[in-house]
Amino acid sequence: MATATTRNNYLDENQSRFIEQLLEWLAIPSISTLPEHKDDVRRAADWVRDKLVAMGFPEAKTIATEGHPLVYGQWLIDNKRPTLLFYGHYDVQPVDPIDEWQTPPFQPTIRDGNIYCRGASDDKAQIMLVLAALEAWIKVDGALPLNIKILLEGEEEAGGASIARYVQENPEFLRADAVLICDTHMVHPKQPSLVTGLRGVLYTELAVSGAKTDLHSGSYGGVAPNPIHALCILISRLKGEDGVIQIPELAAAIPIPSAAEELFWQEDPLHAKEALCTEMGVEELVGEKEYPALERIGLRPALEVHGIRGGFTGTGAKTVIPASAIAKVSLRLPAGLEPNEVFAWLEKAVDEKIPGGHKVRLSNLHSGKGFYIEHDNRYIRAAAEALESAYGTAPVFMREGGSIPIAALFDTVLKTPVVLMGFGLPDDNIHAPNEKFSINQFNKGTKTVADFLGRLTSG
Amino acid sequence: MATATTRNNYLDENQSRFIEQLLEWLAIPSISTLPEHKDDVRRAADWVRDKLVAMGFPEAKTIATEGHPLVYGQWLIDNKRPTLLFYGHYDVQPVDPIDEWQTPPFQPTIRDGNIYCRGASDDKAQIMLVLAALEAWIKVDGALPLNIKILLEGEEEAGGASIARYVQENPEFLRADAVLICDTHMVHPKQPSLVTGLRGVLYTELAVSGAKTDLHSGSYGGVAPNPIHALCILISRLKGEDGVIQIPELAAAIPIPSAAEELFWQEDPLHAKEALCTEMGVEELVGEKEYPALERIGLRPALEVHGIRGGFTGTGAKTVIPASAIAKVSLRLPAGLEPNEVFAWLEKAVDEKIPGGHKVRLSNLHSGKGFYIEHDNRYIRAAAEALESAYGTAPVFMREGGSIPIAALFDTVLKTPVVLMGFGLPDDNIHAPNEKFSINQFNKGTKTVADFLGRLTSG
Repeated sequence: MATATTRNNYLDENQSRFIEQLLEWLAIPSISTLPEHKDDVRRAADWVRDKLVAMGFPEAKTIATEGHPLVYGQWLIDNKRPTLLFYGHYDVQPVDPIDEWQTPPFQPTIRDGNIYCRGASDDKAQIMLVLAALEAWIKVDGALPLNIKILLEGEEEAGGASIARYVQENPEFLRADAVLICDTHMVHPKQPSLVTGLRGVLYTELAVSGAKTDLHSGSYGGVAPNPIHALCILISRLKGEDGVIQIPELAAAIPIPSAAEELFWQEDPLHAKEALCTEMGVEELVGEKEYPALERIGLRPALEVHGIRGGFTGTGAKTVIPASAIAKVSLRLPAGLEPNEVFAWLEKAVDEKIPGGHKVRLSNLHSGKGFYIEHDNRYIRAAAEALESAYGTAPVFMREGGSIPIAALFDTVLKTPVVLMGFGLPDDNIHAPNEKFSINQFNKGTKTVADFLGRLTSG
Repeated sequence: MATATTRNNYLDENQSRFIEQLLEWLAIPSISTLPEHKDDVRRAADWVRDKLVAMGFPEAKTIATEGHPLVYGQWLIDNKRPTLLFYGHYDVQPVDPIDEWQTPPFQPTIRDGNIYCRGASDDKAQIMLVLAALEAWIKVDGALPLNIKILLEGEEEAGGASIARYVQENPEFLRADAVLICDTHMVHPKQPSLVTGLRGVLYTELAVSGAKTDLHSGSYGGVAPNPIHALCILISRLKGEDGVIQIPELAAAIPIPSAAEELFWQEDPLHAKEALCTEMGVEELVGEKEYPALERIGLRPALEVHGIRGGFTGTGAKTVIPASAIAKVSLRLPAGLEPNEVFAWLEKAVDEKIPGGHKVRLSNLHSGKGFYIEHDNRYIRAAAEALESAYGTAPVFMREGGSIPIAALFDTVLKTPVVLMGFGLPDDNIHAPNEKFSINQFNKGTKTVADFLGRLTSG
């Protein structure tokens, strides 16, 4: 077995080639939620399958689904060695508001040590850095240090239905000793972190209707149902200025954290609160002020409105009372909760809180369970050691606010420990204009993953 | 002087020609609020100026303004006779939501005795029926029965700034004994009505902002400002489910109606409440249930949200917390209130009610004063007699909920009594898809106006 230094040298020497390939992949606008990008999503799948073939994977293929294809690669070297299943997603978020991008969202651009492109941090660069780490083993040591299965999906930003079905139907085929996911971020460029918890998500659409047609506000203003107004009242009743979600069943279901975790949140040694304020450009956090910032993001449920639309919003004025209005509303859920059960609670709350004279319909657009792994799991320890070796600092254990439903699925269906070791940074602007990924993080990430693979074999 | 019957026969015989011309005018999409329709607005102005020329008006011209042109026509026959100033507007509302139109909005279509087209009822057909009445006098009697001034604007749906300036700068030139406006509707096809009151309007835009950029709701949900949510809370605080507007200065400024008017509203002999429910397709009115329907529309202020926009509302899901959101919000105001003063009250309420951690900006998009005329005014009496003659039923006196700021302006600047005699019907869908105007109302309208003109001379 070669030394870590040799592999690290290989990774440094070949970095510009890895980046070049990444830019080529990033330029494919694989937006999974927009039907007009279906072919682009397919191209992005083919691209990474071809990359696996070029790396020498004996098995590398796309798998057709009812939605976008999965990409599967497998290189089994020795059934006495452990097997690692690596998961990632090659699809990306939509790009609007497009006007706010400094460079076009699918024209990958390097500025100030970062790669700017939709999908850079979430999740193409983080897949590419794992492929680079694998290549280092193949080229420097002549072989991978353990058995590798790679499963990439193209619907992570669109609910992930196809991979969920595939995992449920093929647990034996996907069997592994651990799962690696690089789709999260570190708390700080100098402070590595491992994600040991993720919130679940329930994403819904609220549609409110009133009169049978649009009305003139002069003739009907003061007596008419107004679906926009009713939607506003409903939303303000679901969560008021104090940030407390008014769903009693949900409030009762929030789990109790460990004393150590509670202390870490209270003390906030990483100054998460100040960091969040700086990232958002605000002076104060909004919401449940009595809870620490990290607890609110990692454990507490959150209700957020992502979009609202109704009536006339063009230039100028139109004195209309519209017949309908819609909003996209999600709940982030503590680990352990079943989104479908929460949907029923939300539905009940919505029916109770909608102002009289209006109809409301709640649709479940997608959902995923939360996730939690104990800090002393052996794969978590291996990851922690690899991070400490690369960054010179032991990682902190974080509960992330984001949702990776597939992590919960691997956990509950495959019953395999999941290591969430991400190399994004808090200011990566994921899901927003000017998404980027740090080239320095790319480099450190390749080395950390290469080291982690070695520790799994020797462990 | 020919008899009313002769003129009515002329109006019947020539009706199809009037309608044909009207359809030609309606086909011009003179949407005043959309810059891309500037030339269409101009064409609609030229069209009606040419019509006045063809009718023999010795003076007929367009008058350039900073916005869309005014059209002015004048035919002074005898300075011992009274002078009537006729006002109308040739501009129309935008057409969205376009999908809900049964036939294209600017393809005038006759179905079931109605002309369907954007601008049919509001206000082109109502101008055309006055022109037809004038033509009947010119052709049958050889001359108009009194001096006529015609002033048409192209910005009624866009705030009416240009005509307001013109009227304020030219009160002498526009001097008249009475003003006729046909831009309202009757309560029922068999029950004529005269509008003796109009609410004023204050149309504003609320813009709320939060973080410096769009945020991912996973990473920031629960601690971030959410401008959509803040806007919802703000709107629900300005007016809750009880329909009461939470602006104390406004509540204190609502005028006291006469006992007779109060009784008419309480008794509601025309079953306005049921009619409103039917028109809207609802079972109950929404809002201040303790007040009669007609009082709520005619006298009480109304706060309505016309449009709201923020975040992602496309197909599928995007887990974004947007950096900003906007809403269009108007107040309908009782006669006598000064909109600029009300704007200051609203601004104060908005600043008080916006949830912490968010910035809000309120813009005044346009405004107009309300209007009220006593029932025993002599021009109102002449109009009432003409309506009773044409419909066989005495008209009722109504306060309309809509706003015609120009009526207030004629009232306060020219100090001229304003007769609001409209021939629209409650189901004309003005400002909504499938706007229409009844051909039967067109016919009766031409005869009523011709009769009214005669009564002004003989009175």
